[in-house]
Amino acid sequence: MGSLAPYQRKHKVTVVGSGNWGTAIAKIVAENAASNPGIFEEKVEMWVFEEKVEISKTSRHYDPSLPLCQGPQNLTEVINQTHENVKYLPGINLPTNLHANPSLVDAVQDSTILVFNLPHQFIIKTCEQIKGKILPYARGISCIKGVDVNEEGISLFSETIGKILGIYCGALSGANIASEVAQEKWSESSIAYDPPHMDSKAPSPNRSPSSSTENLVQFEHKDVSGQFSRVKLQALPSDYPPVDHAVLKSLFHRPYFHIRVVNDVAGVSLGGALKNVVALAAGWVDGMGWGDNAKAAIMRVGLLEMVKFGEQFFSATINTRTFTEESAGVADLITSCSGGRNFRCAKLSIERKQPIEKVEETELNGQKLQGTLTAVEVNSFLKNQGLEEEFPLLTAVYRVLQGTMSVEDIPSYIER
Amino acid sequence: MGSLAPYQRKHKVTVVGSGNWGTAIAKIVAENAASNPGIFEEKVEMWVFEEKVEISKTSRHYDPSLPLCQGPQNLTEVINQTHENVKYLPGINLPTNLHANPSLVDAVQDSTILVFNLPHQFIIKTCEQIKGKILPYARGISCIKGVDVNEEGISLFSETIGKILGIYCGALSGANIASEVAQEKWSESSIAYDPPHMDSKAPSPNRSPSSSTENLVQFEHKDVSGQFSRVKLQALPSDYPPVDHAVLKSLFHRPYFHIRVVNDVAGVSLGGALKNVVALAAGWVDGMGWGDNAKAAIMRVGLLEMVKFGEQFFSATINTRTFTEESAGVADLITSCSGGRNFRCAKLSIERKQPIEKVEETELNGQKLQGTLTAVEVNSFLKNQGLEEEFPLLTAVYRVLQGTMSVEDIPSYIER
Repeated sequence: MGSLAPYQRKHKVTVVGSGNWGTAIAKIVAENAASNPGIFEEKVEMWVFEEKVEISKTSRHYDPSLPLCQGPQNLTEVINQTHENVKYLPGINLPTNLHANPSLVDAVQDSTILVFNLPHQFIIKTCEQIKGKILPYARGISCIKGVDVNEEGISLFSETIGKILGIYCGALSGANIASEVAQEKWSESSIAYDPPHMDSKAPSPNRSPSSSTENLVQFEHKDVSGQFSRVKLQALPSDYPPVDHAVLKSLFHRPYFHIRVVNDVAGVSLGGALKNVVALAAGWVDGMGWGDNAKAAIMRVGLLEMVKFGEQFFSATINTRTFTEESAGVADLITSCSGGRNFRCAKLSIERKQPIEKVEETELNGQKLQGTLTAVEVNSFLKNQGLEEEFPLLTAVYRVLQGTMSVEDIPSYIER
Repeated sequence: MGSLAPYQRKHKVTVVGSGNWGTAIAKIVAENAASNPGIFEEKVEMWVFEEKVEISKTSRHYDPSLPLCQGPQNLTEVINQTHENVKYLPGINLPTNLHANPSLVDAVQDSTILVFNLPHQFIIKTCEQIKGKILPYARGISCIKGVDVNEEGISLFSETIGKILGIYCGALSGANIASEVAQEKWSESSIAYDPPHMDSKAPSPNRSPSSSTENLVQFEHKDVSGQFSRVKLQALPSDYPPVDHAVLKSLFHRPYFHIRVVNDVAGVSLGGALKNVVALAAGWVDGMGWGDNAKAAIMRVGLLEMVKFGEQFFSATINTRTFTEESAGVADLITSCSGGRNFRCAKLSIERKQPIEKVEETELNGQKLQGTLTAVEVNSFLKNQGLEEEFPLLTAVYRVLQGTMSVEDIPSYIER
């Protein structure tokens, strides 16, 4: 995998985002860029939303004689000098070939592979800032958990990114607590990537060239909900190694971070969204002191409803075995119901007899729970379809959040 | 469900075994017998291996003026007077219609439903003691976790029981830590029951009557590994309610113990066996401090190998969705990898740097770990088939137990 000699050009990789998960992924990508010099440019860019930080006196980098330690500094400069994201991933050594860049446009320029890893409320704005300023044949990987669900329908963040930027974008998701991955504790993850067959030059039955530009090809693209739309994607020039499953594995797989690459973008993305709703119920049940049997029962029913949700609303493209076989499915569910923040806050809300919003305020330092938001969005969608009763656990979580059902009622409500 | 009026006779139910899980199940069965008087006789028998116990001075039953509290007493007498199994399930009130019986033969006499719940090393001896002394048309349910695996093949304990006694026997298994079930904390469980279609009087394509006795019918029975054998089963007299999924649900389902009845005896039984092997690996990984991601990865791979084991060796009868959908599959795996004894002892063996046999000795009070035994049996079978490499996690657990592989080697060995 170390060399794909026939190609004259190498992929430049940029990570868009630098929170704890963003930085952990940037570390992996930079490590792999360095160890696969035949495929990737060594220097990896990481876009950092610039802010001022101070190196604390207890930090291993503190040395009052250094200019860096004399008052507030730009986060990017601190990262590039100390090779540590002191604000969002303190204590972790970053590879020296990872470059923190405060300019979004500069960071993505000339990159053929864009890795998106930022809170989902910033996705659209960020993409609009770089629209038209990236290589037209770039490819994306979204590490953003969750899906965009509302009354009208469901879309995947990878599709949102792809549509705005006019590129193909896959997804990465798995049982990955960021701090553990950053510490190089062994874990697994899933990448889903299934672009139209253009880069590989394989014939595609849907191919209907409509542009005189040699590399601009129009496809009948079937999105995850089965709808066809015409999209124009530009083929990667043939002097680059094709962005395929093998190249993505070279970019993300580490001895401590085992990757399986699959085609099911919908399954990988849905798993990451719905497991947060299940984790709330698991947290409540654990907070009630109902024990391990009850928690396992909630997770079993949650897994069933995840599979059913996929079958019912993404039947055109989903492989429901993703939920039961891949890290982005059952393993991520297990991790999230063990120590994830949705689980923890839900559990605390029972133990402290506080609304979960109150726990969120005191425990999360201004960050928001993904599960409560997803529960409301999913319910709005299910209600609109008249299908609340078909998904009793997802519905019960919403109702408990609304105060119209109590946790004690969940077992009998979800019984089938 | 409370009444099946047309039937003149009722089922007498006996629970064979009275450890903590046996007593917890006997409690459920007696509660349901009392609340379904149209189907079951109220009095439920529980066979208790007789031993002498003393009521401790701190017990709620201690009263020095009672004969019961003056020196060692028979356990059955203590249970029948205090309605508590003070030895194996202390602190739990048992229904007054549950009768502890020190005579195995007396306890099973005239019973139409026999529930087997005792350590698996006692099954054969116990069945041989009652052979020919039970109703020839009785039906059994085995609550014994595990399967009987050896070099030659695999058999289910329910089949072993059925063969010795000449009756049909199903299985009950699920995410059920006995103490939590006894405390009426909500949980779920699976019952698998799929007898030849005789009791229901439905026509059976395999039916080939060969006896002049009206009720004795010979079947071509296909066992779980797909082999046909001729078995004689006696039909239940028609004045009893048929022993079907609905009746079994009436006998085992409680508001705090939710039952799903399925046909897949092999899947339900295999799940209960193989999850103990996976739990050992989960315990080691947790003991290493590798965190929740790693533990979830082990469980994901374990679930995959459980499904594959079922597909490969029980293809004739298994429904692999049992592993991913039922309590006896993924939920039992989750519970066992959370706080089960195999998990706990494996974790302690790493933390204390002790062989697991040593931990077993000091922690389990003379009881034996099921997982270590199953790992050896399964490996002997896989090795004999030349298939060790096809099941890397099951093989890795065996090798770590043998000292020929270290826990650190597991991630790279199981990577696919």
